[in-house]
Amino acid sequence: MANPPNQAPHTPLLDRVRYPSDLKNFSADQLKQVADELRAETIHAVSQTGGHLGASLGVVELTVAIHAVFDTPKDRLLWDVGHQTYPHKILTGRRDRIRTLRQGGGLSGFTRRSESEYDPFGAAHSSTSISAGLGMAVARDLKRAGAKNGTAKRDDRQVIAVIGDGAMSAGMAYEAMNNAGAMKSRLIVVLNDNDMSIAPPVGAMSAYLSRLISSRPFLSLREVMAKVARRFPAPLERAARRADEFARGMLTGGTLFEELGFYYVGPIDGHNMDHLLPLLRNLRDAEDGAPILLHVVTQKGKGYAPAEAASDKYHAVSKFNVITGAQSKAPPGPPTYTKVFAQALVAEAEADERIVAVTAAMPSGTGLDLFEKRFPKRTFDVGIAEQHAVTFAAGMATEGMKPFVAIYSTFLQRAYDQVVHDVALQKLPVRFALDRAGLVGADGATHAGAYDIAYLGCIPEMVLMASADEAELAHMVATAAAFDEGPTAIRFPRGEGFGLVPVPARGTVLEIGKGRVLREGSTVALLSYGARLQECLKAAEELASRGLSCTVADARFAKPLDTALVERLAREHEVLITIEEGSACGFGALVMQHLAWKGAFDAGLKFRPMTLPDAFIDHDAPKLQYDHAGLSARAIADAAVAALGRGAGAIPARA
Amino acid sequence: MANPPNQAPHTPLLDRVRYPSDLKNFSADQLKQVADELRAETIHAVSQTGGHLGASLGVVELTVAIHAVFDTPKDRLLWDVGHQTYPHKILTGRRDRIRTLRQGGGLSGFTRRSESEYDPFGAAHSSTSISAGLGMAVARDLKRAGAKNGTAKRDDRQVIAVIGDGAMSAGMAYEAMNNAGAMKSRLIVVLNDNDMSIAPPVGAMSAYLSRLISSRPFLSLREVMAKVARRFPAPLERAARRADEFARGMLTGGTLFEELGFYYVGPIDGHNMDHLLPLLRNLRDAEDGAPILLHVVTQKGKGYAPAEAASDKYHAVSKFNVITGAQSKAPPGPPTYTKVFAQALVAEAEADERIVAVTAAMPSGTGLDLFEKRFPKRTFDVGIAEQHAVTFAAGMATEGMKPFVAIYSTFLQRAYDQVVHDVALQKLPVRFALDRAGLVGADGATHAGAYDIAYLGCIPEMVLMASADEAELAHMVATAAAFDEGPTAIRFPRGEGFGLVPVPARGTVLEIGKGRVLREGSTVALLSYGARLQECLKAAEELASRGLSCTVADARFAKPLDTALVERLAREHEVLITIEEGSACGFGALVMQHLAWKGAFDAGLKFRPMTLPDAFIDHDAPKLQYDHAGLSARAIADAAVAALGRGAGAIPARA
Repeated sequence: MANPPNQAPHTPLLDRVRYPSDLKNFSADQLKQVADELRAETIHAVSQTGGHLGASLGVVELTVAIHAVFDTPKDRLLWDVGHQTYPHKILTGRRDRIRTLRQGGGLSGFTRRSESEYDPFGAAHSSTSISAGLGMAVARDLKRAGAKNGTAKRDDRQVIAVIGDGAMSAGMAYEAMNNAGAMKSRLIVVLNDNDMSIAPPVGAMSAYLSRLISSRPFLSLREVMAKVARRFPAPLERAARRADEFARGMLTGGTLFEELGFYYVGPIDGHNMDHLLPLLRNLRDAEDGAPILLHVVTQKGKGYAPAEAASDKYHAVSKFNVITGAQSKAPPGPPTYTKVFAQALVAEAEADERIVAVTAAMPSGTGLDLFEKRFPKRTFDVGIAEQHAVTFAAGMATEGMKPFVAIYSTFLQRAYDQVVHDVALQKLPVRFALDRAGLVGADGATHAGAYDIAYLGCIPEMVLMASADEAELAHMVATAAAFDEGPTAIRFPRGEGFGLVPVPARGTVLEIGKGRVLREGSTVALLSYGARLQECLKAAEELASRGLSCTVADARFAKPLDTALVERLAREHEVLITIEEGSACGFGALVMQHLAWKGAFDAGLKFRPMTLPDAFIDHDAPKLQYDHAGLSARAIADAAVAALGRGAGAIPARA
Repeated sequence: MANPPNQAPHTPLLDRVRYPSDLKNFSADQLKQVADELRAETIHAVSQTGGHLGASLGVVELTVAIHAVFDTPKDRLLWDVGHQTYPHKILTGRRDRIRTLRQGGGLSGFTRRSESEYDPFGAAHSSTSISAGLGMAVARDLKRAGAKNGTAKRDDRQVIAVIGDGAMSAGMAYEAMNNAGAMKSRLIVVLNDNDMSIAPPVGAMSAYLSRLISSRPFLSLREVMAKVARRFPAPLERAARRADEFARGMLTGGTLFEELGFYYVGPIDGHNMDHLLPLLRNLRDAEDGAPILLHVVTQKGKGYAPAEAASDKYHAVSKFNVITGAQSKAPPGPPTYTKVFAQALVAEAEADERIVAVTAAMPSGTGLDLFEKRFPKRTFDVGIAEQHAVTFAAGMATEGMKPFVAIYSTFLQRAYDQVVHDVALQKLPVRFALDRAGLVGADGATHAGAYDIAYLGCIPEMVLMASADEAELAHMVATAAAFDEGPTAIRFPRGEGFGLVPVPARGTVLEIGKGRVLREGSTVALLSYGARLQECLKAAEELASRGLSCTVADARFAKPLDTALVERLAREHEVLITIEEGSACGFGALVMQHLAWKGAFDAGLKFRPMTLPDAFIDHDAPKLQYDHAGLSARAIADAAVAALGRGAGAIPARA
């Protein structure tokens, strides 16, 4: 489908803004107009590129107000997650590139230090902003202290962290609040409460915020000003206030944020510029002291009717028609791995009521929304809380349940210790379904599932599988469901399958630690782990056309390794190449560790471990990312030919 | 020093208790006596073995009361961290082995599923108990629902998680509270508030708890009973209560725990058996509903005067004289790596005021207590909050500070995503000082620093170093301080150095990515990464005595690898062995990845990567652990000889 013929909006005032400093002389009414134009521009840009629309629309006024009041980039503005920063990018020198968002070579869909000095901290994973912001605030304070000693320049920058209510369910945000609340460093945390992260929010904190809002109507303008005055009184009133504060603290009767040592201000309407501007100015000018939490209520998708009406508030959209809101649909293709996983899990769960599923705030991303429809009581969305998700699943496993933790490879990094300490060490049969393994396209390096083979491969007791195609994924889900002796993990890529094999209604249980051979040859052996298998088969064709006979095998398991298969491939071929959609220190390393101890290198073996390069790979189309990474059929074939041609090797044989 | 001649205590009542069921018919007065005897027995046992005394003494009454009231092991009792479970072990069938605590082949110093059915969840890292307990509670509820459907047996077990106030600073505990507070699963969390974890507690939550206690005196017995009655009213009062609860919720005026959806009961005196017993019985018999938080105040080291008087409350002690409290001192030896690290960091910080240090609640374990004495304002103890610690350091690094995160290898697992996403991806110069790398002795598998080479080795941009001895550590601290282009990590072992080299007052900056050769030979090359270097030198001696000429090199860096050194060793020797105190997929894997692509295996190279085995290694003396792991000088020499003898290798050459 062609791009919809959307008209670029008329934006006379926004056209005068290239950097936030251009907002400084605008009146409140002008800033309101800038916000309206910025919203129209954001909608138009995302209609051309796709991306995270709803979150950006919710913070248009907040973005304008903060940039108008504070002195960015000297003042540090941190956006948690960073997917709500399209308006921020438009206001900070990047409007001319906003229609390259998430495209190869274009702007990142998140904040990024290398992209702009207005992005003081890169984000993409949730709940990091308070920690990073506190670090910046403390650094400022230390420099200030140094300035008093005459050894450094006085630093009076402000630090503002904007964090969503969903991100507040993560332990990391709590750790940061707990630390910040006990320090006297000036830090402004803006809690952007839209009662919505990606899915509807879950957890007690979310319920608490709802109660807080419903029990306290928005502050009026007069109250906004009074609140500020009360919080930051004139010097003469300070001593009395301190006694009062002390008494208040002893009664422990404030909001949860006050209990944690923050000054709480709010809630206020985050779309009301007349309230935002004076309040932010006053917070900016307040004297130092405890950190501040400003509770702002916004509406995800605000100001664009199709987004406001959609249940997901247009969280992440493809290209769309601005008038109708209709999103471009990809031509019908094979099912995604996510969907295949979900269907396979439902099939297993129909047969075994001990199967339960856990997600950390990603029910639709992981396919568990489909599982939940069928088994609502056996589905657990714990919020953005990966650490808890894993140990919670471990607890269920001790009682004989069969938990599947459905999670992106990149997010399991958040629960690494729990995998080691709570699952593997106790040999508990928790099943990990690692979606988005390998390179992930438009989300870029922050979301790449590049490291799980390495970080899980080093842990004892793990059974590690990777799916070569959709049918394999179904078999592996069945295998994990059946295997009750310890933890298992299945990795599979983002996006659609190949559509080359029929997906069974229910998978077949595979033999643990056994691979399969798809093509027999004699000179070159390609041992694939995961979805590069198709590229290996193509490479084998190419090698055959050059007269080189090629074996292609699918390892299926990285742990336990199919040592008989590995040894046979080493013994019967001149060249052995492993291929995986992951970093070094992964599958190839496990194969080499085995071969080295078996003495397979002693008399010579042209072994080449093909992995992702030792570098972060920017967002682009996945195929281009893999070409860049050197994991295409062409690159595989070239590696085989080069290995054969190199003969005695670049390192001269011993004298 | 010989063990002090401590008299075993007289314990007539405790002698009648082999399992908790033996407590059931005891009166309250008898249970008090059991507690007194249990305390004496615990003190005597730890005087013989050393271990975590203070925490165990603080929970003697709680341990007796819980086991007397609840029906363990059917009811699940989870002890967070698990180092306070010596009394629990004595009461649960392990008294006869209590004097083997933390010794090779003896009882673990933590809870452990494989040790006893009374340990339903293994622990050692903090803050996992609420997550695991919630998983157990939810599994029970699902089975109950199944029982209603006639497909499963009714399960009415209780789940009790006992967690310290220090552990509540971890995000994981908050994530679990947030999830539990939104569910209707019966779970009892006992907050054991002793105002003390390992170090004095930090953070806003700790301050909040102090305020809570000081503003609310202990409940009297009458109040205890009334509280229970109010919380769990008779059926007739329920409807009225519900309306009242609703109104209360709307006012958001309860404790922080109530805000998070828990019923809060407390504070009560955790040493008063007359209060503990009736309250626990009532909580046990309460109808299902929201989870319960019972706030118990205890005193670490309670009942043993030397412990009560000590600033650390005898957190972890060596063997001691029960009468005097005097702890055995190890004979004076070389300084510990921890101390060398701290002194080296102080030396660097004297010269560069940008150096700051971060610890997650382990100031003394990491040596930062020494740093803090000199630079109190540049030392940040963030509480048990590893995720925050790392990103907080990243935030400081963006502002030009030079943060050192001093952390155990095993605890950095808690912040893995932050290392990848917040530090490495942004190439921020955060320095990680990884103490307790490798095997750690009495703390066993839960604390082994076995995986950091693998889990950091796969990440781009990391500079990874390992210290071969104390002087090397000083040099590496200087190197990390000087290197400002990206993140660095230095790993070093637990315990004392070798005392073979003088430690410089300030280290020398090493060339990044360059190793060193300590001994030149011609047949066998030993390439060590870390503190096995001494074993390699011994192995070289042994090989020389067998007529085999041996090169010994210290890689110093795993990343960037000294590729010239690696290639030379491969080129000039028949056998190349890498040795590291870590798992597979680490240093050896990085060396093989390089050698394979350089074609070093093409014409034959007897390469052997010596790593820790793919298994969890139990607590024992470190030397015995390494012998068991096959990383002794003898094992290294044997591997070299075997490689030479094997000739063409176990895998026959291709036909």
